[in-house]
Amino acid sequence: MDFGKRFRVRPGTEFELDSVDPGFHGPHANDVEAAESLKQNLDRITKLQRMLYAEKKHALLIVLQGIDGAGKDGACWHVMSAMDPQGVHVTGFKQPTAEEREHDFLWRVHPHAPRRGEAAIFNRSHYEDVLTVRVHKLVPKEIWKPRYDFINDWERMLAVENNTVILKFFLYISKEEQLERFKTRLDDPAHQWKISESDYTERNYWDDYIKAFEAMLSRCSADHAPWFVIPSNHKWFRNLALSQIIADTLEEMHLQMPKPSVDLDEIRRLYHQSVEAEKRSAGA
Amino acid sequence: MDFGKRFRVRPGTEFELDSVDPGFHGPHANDVEAAESLKQNLDRITKLQRMLYAEKKHALLIVLQGIDGAGKDGACWHVMSAMDPQGVHVTGFKQPTAEEREHDFLWRVHPHAPRRGEAAIFNRSHYEDVLTVRVHKLVPKEIWKPRYDFINDWERMLAVENNTVILKFFLYISKEEQLERFKTRLDDPAHQWKISESDYTERNYWDDYIKAFEAMLSRCSADHAPWFVIPSNHKWFRNLALSQIIADTLEEMHLQMPKPSVDLDEIRRLYHQSVEAEKRSAGA
Repeated sequence: MDFGKRFRVRPGTEFELDSVDPGFHGPHANDVEAAESLKQNLDRITKLQRMLYAEKKHALLIVLQGIDGAGKDGACWHVMSAMDPQGVHVTGFKQPTAEEREHDFLWRVHPHAPRRGEAAIFNRSHYEDVLTVRVHKLVPKEIWKPRYDFINDWERMLAVENNTVILKFFLYISKEEQLERFKTRLDDPAHQWKISESDYTERNYWDDYIKAFEAMLSRCSADHAPWFVIPSNHKWFRNLALSQIIADTLEEMHLQMPKPSVDLDEIRRLYHQSVEAEKRSAGA
Repeated sequence: MDFGKRFRVRPGTEFELDSVDPGFHGPHANDVEAAESLKQNLDRITKLQRMLYAEKKHALLIVLQGIDGAGKDGACWHVMSAMDPQGVHVTGFKQPTAEEREHDFLWRVHPHAPRRGEAAIFNRSHYEDVLTVRVHKLVPKEIWKPRYDFINDWERMLAVENNTVILKFFLYISKEEQLERFKTRLDDPAHQWKISESDYTERNYWDDYIKAFEAMLSRCSADHAPWFVIPSNHKWFRNLALSQIIADTLEEMHLQMPKPSVDLDEIRRLYHQSVEAEKRSAGA
């Protein structure tokens, strides 16, 4: 099944999250059945990222958004595991600092755009400024409304100017699944420290968030920077879909290993010289 | 076997690399035999890094140095794989840019020092400025000589000021093993692009490098920032030793999960309220 095609938000359409079943899990019944496909995807990513890094022609930007508990951290770790860490940077965008708030909303994001040859993963992103900020009215509508265009302009610039391929994943879980995950945190000593009341009070804004998500998906999916809505109630399926879409995208970039910058026969000669020198010094 | 104790360079001693066998591989005969110990180390790192991140009291800085082919990239990937990527940053230090050269040698390094709660891995580091720079006489002796002290001062400041635990690993391979690895690159299409003549011409400076490594190890191993010389002819052993030392160090930090910032019983009440609300809205 081509998850990229299936989950891609068609640019210029009014997208409704109701059209997606967050419990969808494709042809596999569970993680065990999906394991082999997942492994293949990760192996493809490993191989292709090496070429991306070597060729230095394109950059890859992966954006992860989703409501609390949707699995952004897990997805991030999973994708990273397939990539040589020297070619990929993860940035988590938290509450902006005082200094950041004194700038335009893209100011703190821009420095983390990937250079050619590299991948960047944004765990939350500039989209927070049309999500949380909109839902909680942290700035007036006159301010957040033009941001959809600013985001589109900025992403287009990255795509054109720096060959940045942009993939944006909205991890979609149901309201019930979120509650389940909060429950798990409550029972897990390793997670209790980060529980806050706001986990629950934020749920009162669920419908507002859905509206903000839909606006983002409808207004900011572009051919050069598509949004994908990933059914994420099943973590294993989320990883499977994500890895397939990333691997397929890298494949479509027709990456090529650069030619060696040196004459390999000449280098082989140097190699044999070195071997001879070793032998002599061992004999000496 | 306590690799930390065994491979640690005692502060204030004249260290000679001749005293280390780069082919050493401890009690295990091969990677298969070592697999279970390695897995245990990585599991410990995963668990402890989560606590480091949550507690936000200490920072961890891991420095990797070694001659070309010593396995810095591989070691880096390996260590990273055990850590949640949102709490760790890898920085590879390449040839300094023109702007960087117009500053002191620590200027480009300092911004990458880890914040409390985070780990940073340096793939090459500020030590290049007393290694390559010294060997190739890129700056005169008056300039590189005081740098050992500057490095010690800076690392001590990080340790004292920011609770930064600093672990420095020198990955030590033999001259023959390096040649073997170059040979492998020559035969591997995925690596041919980055082969250069200098791989071989640099070998002419082997003894000078050894001298520079020894000076670095002798002058810059401190209790709060020890150097470890890791026998690295066997990649699996390198990973095993590294992961054990990192896990042991994290353990000695007596990390603790912070207490929840909220009353968990109160949160459980909120949870049950939410469950009830779900039920009502499903019934409605």
